[in-house]
Amino acid sequence: MDYRLDYISRVFTKLKSKPIEKYAITRIWHLMDDLEIKVVPQQYVKREFKKYALTDLYFPQLKLHVEINEPAHYLSEEKIEIDKLRKEQIINSTNHKVIEIDCRGTIEEINERIGDAVKSIKKEIKELRESNKFKPWRPQDEYSVNYYKEQKKLKVEDDVQLKTIEEICQLFDAPLKKRGYLRPGAAIHPDKENILLWWPSTRKRKGWINQISEDESTILETNEDENTRKNHIQNQLNSQRKERYVFLHNRDMLGMTSYKFKGIYKLNEEESTFDKGVIWSRISKEIKMK
Amino acid sequence: MDYRLDYISRVFTKLKSKPIEKYAITRIWHLMDDLEIKVVPQQYVKREFKKYALTDLYFPQLKLHVEINEPAHYLSEEKIEIDKLRKEQIINSTNHKVIEIDCRGTIEEINERIGDAVKSIKKEIKELRESNKFKPWRPQDEYSVNYYKEQKKLKVEDDVQLKTIEEICQLFDAPLKKRGYLRPGAAIHPDKENILLWWPSTRKRKGWINQISEDESTILETNEDENTRKNHIQNQLNSQRKERYVFLHNRDMLGMTSYKFKGIYKLNEEESTFDKGVIWSRISKEIKMK
Repeated sequence: MDYRLDYISRVFTKLKSKPIEKYAITRIWHLMDDLEIKVVPQQYVKREFKKYALTDLYFPQLKLHVEINEPAHYLSEEKIEIDKLRKEQIINSTNHKVIEIDCRGTIEEINERIGDAVKSIKKEIKELRESNKFKPWRPQDEYSVNYYKEQKKLKVEDDVQLKTIEEICQLFDAPLKKRGYLRPGAAIHPDKENILLWWPSTRKRKGWINQISEDESTILETNEDENTRKNHIQNQLNSQRKERYVFLHNRDMLGMTSYKFKGIYKLNEEESTFDKGVIWSRISKEIKMK
Repeated sequence: MDYRLDYISRVFTKLKSKPIEKYAITRIWHLMDDLEIKVVPQQYVKREFKKYALTDLYFPQLKLHVEINEPAHYLSEEKIEIDKLRKEQIINSTNHKVIEIDCRGTIEEINERIGDAVKSIKKEIKELRESNKFKPWRPQDEYSVNYYKEQKKLKVEDDVQLKTIEEICQLFDAPLKKRGYLRPGAAIHPDKENILLWWPSTRKRKGWINQISEDESTILETNEDENTRKNHIQNQLNSQRKERYVFLHNRDMLGMTSYKFKGIYKLNEEESTFDKGVIWSRISKEIKMK
C-alpha cells in the first residue's frame, strides 16, 4: 500500500481521539488536499521542567500545532486559564506556532472555523514554497534504500528510517548472516573493520535490555544475567569493532514499525562496568555515504 | 452537540471499518461538503431469498450506494466475479444505483477516483434540487417535538424519531406518570380513550420480551413467567385501550438511541394466546395530528 495512504488512514483509525477531534482532523487533511504536507497527531512537546503536552495535530514542515478545542474546553474560567498557560508554555519552549479551533456551536460554525484554519495553513505553505524553503513530504521515496544510497550523508535530523533489517544491510552492501532460524541482532560493515551495523530494540528480549537516554546521546546495552553481561563487556573491549551505526527499532503510536537512524555510537570504556553493562556514546549524528 | 456533528463523527469513530474505507468515507463526506445530505454507513440491503449485503456508504436521498473496493477485492478472478454478482443482485432487488471505487494504486490515483465519485454524486443532487424533488436532511429540526406537532401526519416512511419518552408524551400532550423510581412503559392518550402510547424495547427486561416481525406488521409482547403472561393477556382483553401508538426503542450501530415511530397497532384477539403472549397487529402506518 502507498505509504502515505497507510500513514494517514492509520491516523484516522488507530488513534483514540474524541469524536469532534477526529471530525476536525479528517476535515483539515482532506481540505488541505496537499500530499506533500505531513501531519503528526498527538505530538509530544516539552513545556518546562518535567512537564510536557500532546498537541492534537502538528505540521512539522511549518512548526505549527493545531489544537482542537472541544466544547468541554470552555466549561470553566479556570480550565480556559490553564489551557491558555499551557499554550503559552508550548510557544515559549518550542518557538512553534499554535492555532486553536473552537468547536462549540453548530456544525456550520465549526466548519467555518476549520476552513479559516486551513486557509491560514495553506497561506504559510504557499509562502514557504515561494521562498524555496519548503521541503515536501515524500516518505514513499525517502524511506527507501535507493533514496538513501544517493544521499551524500545520512543525517539524524532528516528522520532516516527503513522498514526492515534487510534494508539496513542493503544500504551498506553488508551481508545479513542468519544463524539457522535466529534473527541476527547486527551485521558487520563490509569495508570498515571498526564498524558494526546495529538495530537494537528497547523491548526486553531473552534477558537483553537496551535503553536509550532521553537526549539519545547514550545507549545502555545490558543483560539480566550477570555472566552474560560480563562476557559481553569483555567481548566488546577485546573487539576491533568499537563503533556502531545505530538504527533503533521503533513502533509508533500508529502501529507502524521501522528502524530509525540514531547516529554513530562508540564504546564508552570508562562508563561501561560489569555491574551496569555496556555504554555506547554518540560520536556523530551523521554518516558520510559514498 | 449539533445532531449532525454527533452523527457524522460517530460514523468516523464508532464504526469498525478497514483503514482505506475510513479514508474514503471521510474524504467523500468532506469533499461533498453538503450538510443537507445524509450518509448511512454499512447499509443493510436484501439481495434475494435469505441473502443480504452491507454496502459501505449509502445516500438515502439518492438511493445510491458507494462500495469502497480495497486492493484485496481484486486478488482473484473468482472474488471479482462473486462481487460482481453481489452488485447485480443489490441493483436488481432494490433498483438502487451502486458506485464502486477502486482503491488500488497510489494515493493520488485513489483521490482522483474518489473525486470522480463525488462529482457524479453532486451532479445527481443538483438535478434533484433543480427538479424540486430533493428533500434535505435536517435531523436537528425534524427529530423534535415542535417539528412533529406542526405536521399533518406522522408517517412511518418519514423516519419519525424522538430522543426520550418525555418527548413522546409531549408530542401528544400526555402526562408521563412515574411510579416512584420506576420508568413507566407506556402512557395513556389524553383525548382518545382507546389509545395507549407505547415505547417497547426488544431487549429483555424483568422477564418481559418484545419481538417485532421482520416486516414490522406484528409485535409479540410476552413474559417468561406463565402467570404474568396470562394476567397480561386477560388485562388487554378486558381493557378499553386496544390500540397503541408504537415508538420502538432503537440503538443503532453508531450507538445513538432513539424511539422510532412504527405505526398504530391493534390487539389481535385471534392470534394472542396464553401460550405465546399478546400479539399486536399494525393497522396503520400513520397518525393524523391536529
